[in-house]
Amino acid sequence: MTTPEAREEAVLEAVRKRREQVNEAIPEELPIQRPERLYEASRYLLDAGGKRLRPTVLLATGEALVDVEPLSEDYRAFPTIDGDTIDLMDAAVSVEVIQSFTLIHDDIMDDDDLRRGVPAVHKEYDLETAILAGDTLYSKAFEIMLETGADPSRTVDALGILATTCTKICEGQSLDVTFENRTDVTPEEYLEMVEQKTAVLYAASACLPAILLGADDETIDALYGYGLDIGRAFQIQDDVLDLTVPSEKLGKQRGSDLVENKQTLITVHARDQGVDIEGLVDTTDVEAVTEAEIDDAVAELEAAGSISYANEKARDLVDQGKARLEVLPDNEARDLLCELADYLIERGY
Amino acid sequence: MTTPEAREEAVLEAVRKRREQVNEAIPEELPIQRPERLYEASRYLLDAGGKRLRPTVLLATGEALVDVEPLSEDYRAFPTIDGDTIDLMDAAVSVEVIQSFTLIHDDIMDDDDLRRGVPAVHKEYDLETAILAGDTLYSKAFEIMLETGADPSRTVDALGILATTCTKICEGQSLDVTFENRTDVTPEEYLEMVEQKTAVLYAASACLPAILLGADDETIDALYGYGLDIGRAFQIQDDVLDLTVPSEKLGKQRGSDLVENKQTLITVHARDQGVDIEGLVDTTDVEAVTEAEIDDAVAELEAAGSISYANEKARDLVDQGKARLEVLPDNEARDLLCELADYLIERGY
Repeated sequence: MTTPEAREEAVLEAVRKRREQVNEAIPEELPIQRPERLYEASRYLLDAGGKRLRPTVLLATGEALVDVEPLSEDYRAFPTIDGDTIDLMDAAVSVEVIQSFTLIHDDIMDDDDLRRGVPAVHKEYDLETAILAGDTLYSKAFEIMLETGADPSRTVDALGILATTCTKICEGQSLDVTFENRTDVTPEEYLEMVEQKTAVLYAASACLPAILLGADDETIDALYGYGLDIGRAFQIQDDVLDLTVPSEKLGKQRGSDLVENKQTLITVHARDQGVDIEGLVDTTDVEAVTEAEIDDAVAELEAAGSISYANEKARDLVDQGKARLEVLPDNEARDLLCELADYLIERGY
Repeated sequence: MTTPEAREEAVLEAVRKRREQVNEAIPEELPIQRPERLYEASRYLLDAGGKRLRPTVLLATGEALVDVEPLSEDYRAFPTIDGDTIDLMDAAVSVEVIQSFTLIHDDIMDDDDLRRGVPAVHKEYDLETAILAGDTLYSKAFEIMLETGADPSRTVDALGILATTCTKICEGQSLDVTFENRTDVTPEEYLEMVEQKTAVLYAASACLPAILLGADDETIDALYGYGLDIGRAFQIQDDVLDLTVPSEKLGKQRGSDLVENKQTLITVHARDQGVDIEGLVDTTDVEAVTEAEIDDAVAELEAAGSISYANEKARDLVDQGKARLEVLPDNEARDLLCELADYLIERGY
């Protein structure tokens, strides 16, 4: 029997090995070309780091589907279910590029200064360049997804998923913005917003290999559901971590969601319990807030049971997502997808 | 023999008839749905008007290609070259939606207050909503283009054109922004920027029906070239009109390009002739400039021959574009595409 630490170490190692390959592929798919400043800005956050969780989900799902040993195949010439090969890495890079585009535009909208421990793109460059860098990544993601070499009808389906996913992300971000001015958001509304804003890209990452490699509809749907479940769990955990991880490790001010009056499952639950959420932190300026103020706020949220509530909800979603993987062959890559799901809510940052 | 006025009237009538159908299709493809504010903002500029020149080019090119009488076929069930039918209107709406997305983001980047005589989206709504509205239109354009019902391999090619077009538009806009800080832009550089920023969407509009309806590569390439030529001519004429059309008719301050130090073919040429472009208008605030200042600036540009130079360049491009239409069957729709090209540089606003 393995310890939790050994299990987490194994997942991180599996993620790291795929991340290295994704990191190599990004400059191949997105070379710095004229106009250089635009492409440098487009690459800035991608080059600043990131765990590459979505591409890892995509690549591991591909391995589970075609029932090969993890990391045994070249992602650039990956076997389909019916005997062809496609460039699965293109699909993996495409979803990471979409993720990066949304981060750049979200940071403008939230006027966040830091991301991944470096200045946000609109701070490092300027507003114009950041808008354009996001827009460039947007179309590049489509260009890259068009290059997998998959059968045209599968490519059309993959592009359809990519496009509707982007639309839903925008809808979710729009809901998130309107939630900031509301004090009556329900947990259900919050989870719907998270599904659109965050989970759909995990869902796309999990079902895209099924589409491109030629799986049946039942498998595609189950994998989409897995992604939705773990994606929502991931966002809930992110909201927990915003309160509990030291600022240095987080790469931005701890508790910034509270300062900026962002709704989370935690605040929505606490308000239901009678906690005065707006009164938890006095300032709305992340530069001005003190660690002591955040500590007090977190203690109050803990006392209301709201952090445990969020943790339990995330656990339920992960268990539900893992159950959906029964549709896959029983193999090492499927085990990895289960462990990845656990990792998303057990990670420390 | 017809008079120039009668010819222009006939073109406008042809545009108007297609515009009406495009205007009917837009709310069908982009209904106001939850979150309503996002979709209202996305539709705001589309509903505010616009000539629908790009969709008109697309629809008329389709008619010329399959050699049918203009307006005789239902665009929603349009005959392909090989006997199927597709929804050509979807393609037309898609390019107009891309155009609208770029206008919303461009207005933010240029901090323009007015567009089509109404407030820019980031003024009528706010910055966040305007960024998101543009992003939503971006993915919606891809979703709509995926719905034409064309053969998957043609759809893949069409999506490829759409994606590379969007990338080039971003590159062109980026060049345009960097030009504002340069005083040594050559006419060749300016025309390259215009090709990317503006002309590629005309090129896409002209070649997309060829791709979707099943034309050969020679035809696709010729139509792409036609679009590039008339698109560049269109932008040059736009730059001329910015100086010569009264503000009320223009829907924004006349001469705003000069005030904001935007490069145009006119200013690039005038600088070559020794005109002190930066000194033409003292203010950089479009609210503060007077009509008299603009009048003096225009007189100086006229004296340097720069406005005639721009007019001649636009005329050459239109003639070159029209010559490329020889690849099409000789029919009424092809004549319309020639007349449309002339109209782009003869229009008064």
